[in-house]
Amino acid sequence: MKAFVYQGPGKKALEQRPKPDIAAPTDAIVKMSKTTICGTDLHILKGDVATCQPGRILGHEGVGIVDKIGPAVTAFKPGDRVMISCVSACGKCVYCRKLMFSHCTTGGWILGNSIDGTQAEFVRIPYADNSLYPIPAGADEEALVMLSDILPTGFECGVLNGKVQPGNIVAIVGAGPVGLSALLTAQFYSPAEIIMIDLDDNRLDVAKRFGATASINSADGKAVATVMKMTGGRGVDTAIEAVGIPATFELCEQIVAPGGTIANIGVHGTKVDLHLEQLWDRNISITTRLVDTVTIPLLFKTVQSRKIDPKLLITHRFKLDQILDAYETFGHAAKTKALKVIIEA
Amino acid sequence: MKAFVYQGPGKKALEQRPKPDIAAPTDAIVKMSKTTICGTDLHILKGDVATCQPGRILGHEGVGIVDKIGPAVTAFKPGDRVMISCVSACGKCVYCRKLMFSHCTTGGWILGNSIDGTQAEFVRIPYADNSLYPIPAGADEEALVMLSDILPTGFECGVLNGKVQPGNIVAIVGAGPVGLSALLTAQFYSPAEIIMIDLDDNRLDVAKRFGATASINSADGKAVATVMKMTGGRGVDTAIEAVGIPATFELCEQIVAPGGTIANIGVHGTKVDLHLEQLWDRNISITTRLVDTVTIPLLFKTVQSRKIDPKLLITHRFKLDQILDAYETFGHAAKTKALKVIIEA
Amino acid sequence: MKAFVYQGPGKKALEQRPKPDIAAPTDAIVKMSKTTICGTDLHILKGDVATCQPGRILGHEGVGIVDKIGPAVTAFKPGDRVMISCVSACGKCVYCRKLMFSHCTTGGWILGNSIDGTQAEFVRIPYADNSLYPIPAGADEEALVMLSDILPTGFECGVLNGKVQPGNIVAIVGAGPVGLSALLTAQFYSPAEIIMIDLDDNRLDVAKRFGATASINSADGKAVATVMKMTGGRGVDTAIEAVGIPATFELCEQIVAPGGTIANIGVHGTKVDLHLEQLWDRNISITTRLVDTVTIPLLFKTVQSRKIDPKLLITHRFKLDQILDAYETFGHAAKTKALKVIIEA
Amino acid sequence: MKAFVYQGPGKKALEQRPKPDIAAPTDAIVKMSKTTICGTDLHILKGDVATCQPGRILGHEGVGIVDKIGPAVTAFKPGDRVMISCVSACGKCVYCRKLMFSHCTTGGWILGNSIDGTQAEFVRIPYADNSLYPIPAGADEEALVMLSDILPTGFECGVLNGKVQPGNIVAIVGAGPVGLSALLTAQFYSPAEIIMIDLDDNRLDVAKRFGATASINSADGKAVATVMKMTGGRGVDTAIEAVGIPATFELCEQIVAPGGTIANIGVHGTKVDLHLEQLWDRNISITTRLVDTVTIPLLFKTVQSRKIDPKLLITHRFKLDQILDAYETFGHAAKTKALKVIIEA
Repeated sequence: MKAFVYQGPGKKALEQRPKPDIAAPTDAIVKMSKTTICGTDLHILKGDVATCQPGRILGHEGVGIVDKIGPAVTAFKPGDRVMISCVSACGKCVYCRKLMFSHCTTGGWILGNSIDGTQAEFVRIPYADNSLYPIPAGADEEALVMLSDILPTGFECGVLNGKVQPGNIVAIVGAGPVGLSALLTAQFYSPAEIIMIDLDDNRLDVAKRFGATASINSADGKAVATVMKMTGGRGVDTAIEAVGIPATFELCEQIVAPGGTIANIGVHGTKVDLHLEQLWDRNISITTRLVDTVTIPLLFKTVQSRKIDPKLLITHRFKLDQILDAYETFGHAAKTKALKVIIEA
Repeated sequence: MKAFVYQGPGKKALEQRPKPDIAAPTDAIVKMSKTTICGTDLHILKGDVATCQPGRILGHEGVGIVDKIGPAVTAFKPGDRVMISCVSACGKCVYCRKLMFSHCTTGGWILGNSIDGTQAEFVRIPYADNSLYPIPAGADEEALVMLSDILPTGFECGVLNGKVQPGNIVAIVGAGPVGLSALLTAQFYSPAEIIMIDLDDNRLDVAKRFGATASINSADGKAVATVMKMTGGRGVDTAIEAVGIPATFELCEQIVAPGGTIANIGVHGTKVDLHLEQLWDRNISITTRLVDTVTIPLLFKTVQSRKIDPKLLITHRFKLDQILDAYETFGHAAKTKALKVIIEA
Repeated sequence: MKAFVYQGPGKKALEQRPKPDIAAPTDAIVKMSKTTICGTDLHILKGDVATCQPGRILGHEGVGIVDKIGPAVTAFKPGDRVMISCVSACGKCVYCRKLMFSHCTTGGWILGNSIDGTQAEFVRIPYADNSLYPIPAGADEEALVMLSDILPTGFECGVLNGKVQPGNIVAIVGAGPVGLSALLTAQFYSPAEIIMIDLDDNRLDVAKRFGATASINSADGKAVATVMKMTGGRGVDTAIEAVGIPATFELCEQIVAPGGTIANIGVHGTKVDLHLEQLWDRNISITTRLVDTVTIPLLFKTVQSRKIDPKLLITHRFKLDQILDAYETFGHAAKTKALKVIIEA
Repeated sequence: MKAFVYQGPGKKALEQRPKPDIAAPTDAIVKMSKTTICGTDLHILKGDVATCQPGRILGHEGVGIVDKIGPAVTAFKPGDRVMISCVSACGKCVYCRKLMFSHCTTGGWILGNSIDGTQAEFVRIPYADNSLYPIPAGADEEALVMLSDILPTGFECGVLNGKVQPGNIVAIVGAGPVGLSALLTAQFYSPAEIIMIDLDDNRLDVAKRFGATASINSADGKAVATVMKMTGGRGVDTAIEAVGIPATFELCEQIVAPGGTIANIGVHGTKVDLHLEQLWDRNISITTRLVDTVTIPLLFKTVQSRKIDPKLLITHRFKLDQILDAYETFGHAAKTKALKVIIEA
């Protein structure tokens, strides 16, 4: 089968690979219909993700059709249309029992990382009963690709951890796909204001179309002052960090109101300064989280009932044969204005 | 009347001052019976608390007898025995309406800070109805002095924010009075283990007597390794920071388990390093809080029903005339083994 | 001044009464601009509310202008435009300290009940700082009349107690003003479905316009079967009772899914059958609540940010001189299709 | 093997039965070491549990040694000492994904009900990875038998649902084994008072020894008045119903304070009167729950750390050969003073 393979820092190719087979009784093999590329895939290609070794088929998102199941799989049968969670969950370890699937002791984010992933014609899915979701008849499969990772990430790490509430003021720092996912799902809770902060005017325009009530281009270094002015000097109830660098995290520290929350989504590569000399008495919370994808069933329902339209995030479409072009497009988002790209197998 | 006055960095004295009077309809004047000294008072004396200017009568804790009330005070009358909250709460601003009394827009921690305090024969208490608590007949007044600040601080900022739960593992970094208050009140929730970490063997001995299940002297630099060994490599569910310096906060970052909480109590004077490159995917929470004293009624009930004995914290007793000695004793705790000192007016 | 007075069961009149004056330091006198009539006022007129004696000026909702304040009122001054909460809260008793203003030991729902109310030219408001809310410049005062009682009632007792969540299925039994308020505010949380159940097709039509995704006329006795069919045999996550009779409460018992909640809003005059033989093992919650109005600030923000339009509830407008007509219209809602009526002073 | 079999209403026997075998890949066969009898077993013997047909081996509690595992079981191997949950959980259905194991679509309480149970030499345990718990070396196995059902039932349905908090007042109606389990586990949260109410003085004496702060024999019909007197006329924060008849549930309705909770544990056979005409405005919650056993890991830790001693509940010990005597003893508890009996296989 065709598969997109990480060949070491800076190197990648569409290779021919053997079709995967059942390796454990709880496995399923899924024939991929559609997949996509995540910012994390770009990190891997740079060599920044130590757990992902050369030779790995990338990809941890997508929808497909069940091809084969192991003897202990009971929730699915060959022919079922399914959505794949980016996180594999055994459903029985100490973390799964707390609904922290991200820390499953034998699963978690392993797809396209420590085991082969979804950017291929077929993929082996461990713990299929807990890691696949049935696609109802008539559902829009492209929309559901967004539920593998990006939407639950924005929702769980940003919106739920950030305790977004009706009438509240939310700031989202970073208007990339994950920040926009937080923006879309924050609206489930009817905050009074959602202020989007980024350096890219195009993305800020997108954010306004997606429901942001205000946008700030932080290039002039005045973002803090602007937020404070907008909020009567009080700051925001929820600050969602969706970039992953010290400057944006520290911006969140400066704009969070007393009693507020900083919900980190960004993947950070270095430490940040935490100004406890200013924050120790401010009654704030800071949260971190690797997406658990426990809200996929909830998100399914919001998509089916048209409370949210995840297809808004899709800007480009490719065939699997064109996956190198797809990476090119996704990798130069500032120029191509790409958000999420769909790759059809 | 006699009053202990901050006279500028490094300078202090027991002075003669005029007795305070009602200044607003919601004020009460309280004749002090017993007060105490807080670590914050030492900070003020060093000149570290900008809001507290020379000439200020210090003290924000204590019990006494209502001497006089303003016309809008309805919950108390002269002669009532009362406990004084360290936080004054108007009961009606946006923060009081969220039970964040610490951020009351016209109150908060003002006693012995921006207005005269309790280390005197009399004190004026603003918003008396929301800032005083009736002392039931037969209650032990010394014990209740501990409810003005130290116990709610340990409980609210450490135990409640730290979400201590039955069966969990808690580490408390810092075995001073506030860390010990967290230790005493953590036991309300029956954690399986409470690991106390400090540099002072005497305080660790006290901690063991107060209910710690293990203690670690971190002087050898091996505290992290020891905690990890104790917890099977997983870390603690709750790490309570009760010192206020970067080293102890960063220790908490290293020992918190996935899904755990770091509850900061310490008063920090400088920023700390937040290692988001290690914590971004650990599903942790970090909380800060200035005590709101909203749990004083709850703590009263636990004292009355003997679930906790706050008098354990009291090591020394002085008369108001000896307050300079009291400061001397409290200020050299390593030598005197002082925890909390009672000063009788 | 003119005032609408309850004169005993079945008797009412617009009388001339003396203008009220400040009686306690925390009082304010408000000159009424607009008020409305509540279903509870009809109960009083029938003689069903024992706490409300003949001679009482009715009304517990409205907006106006501060005319006079007591010496302990600090948040308002004469000339301020204000919205009046139906609940008076001292802000300092054991219940106010838990944000249960409805059970304030010296307040609660007293306006137009045990003290004179708002259906008059002037009204005395006790505990003004905690019971009045400033109206921002440019706000629509008619809309804000809905925040005195009806919207917080639907929101607190129905939506918050009912734990409405994104993607969930909600049923609201009773499409009168309070059920419709629950319908409007439930949408803050983006449930997948809101099923409205009533006997009146007109009100069900209104509900569809207000955002209900389905409606059921329960006249044919098949409402339970219909809900079960709609929900795949599972039932609803939240059942909101907004009528107040045994039949509608028991309907809720029959349609609530395992793990779900029945949130009672209705004012009940008799006991109901609780079928614990069917419900004991269903992991459900049943809640009751008298509105606390603690969410008025939140609701203000949702109105200001146009997340909700409370004016949808207003169907008729009268002058204070026409208040008997207003009662006639409101009292015959099935015929007049009245929801809420505005009475201008 | 020997097995205790329900032979139809009023009929029971110790029979010889074939040893069970693996039927699904997720099954384990456990050789029983110790089991016990539950009140529910008595209900079954009377013919009151429709799901349990004649010919069924009873029992849903116990500890044993893994004898054999199915190919998909990964957490256990033959020879492991294990504790058996009374609830079988697939770990992947919609209810298991919400931690409502009691409503598992293919599991729940099936042991000794719709499939053969633990009162035998061997038992087949479905979904072994999610339904068995490893027994640590050195643990007291008798104590752990109490964790199969009775302790999590008292804790989850009574204490957790009842939101027991430090300083609160709790009443427990019914001092049988399940009420005593609620009593033992309520103390994890340090309530100020726990008032035990029953008709049997012996059980009330036991309750006092187990930590109740007060006891009331309700035989004189004055229990409500007594509780109200004890609580200053306010009532209790939490009322736990642990009997399962209308009179005791209605007692809870009468003693719950505004803002309080009634947590039902009792298995009810008939409807009860819910006095909404008195409760609609009291801001109370009523909860029901079939035990989910999700807190077994937490309870394990509290037993291991000696926060609780479940062996207090054990009053009698028998061999499997004597199980008819054990039923006799357990079935006449008023006379025998039996709480829980241990049956050794």
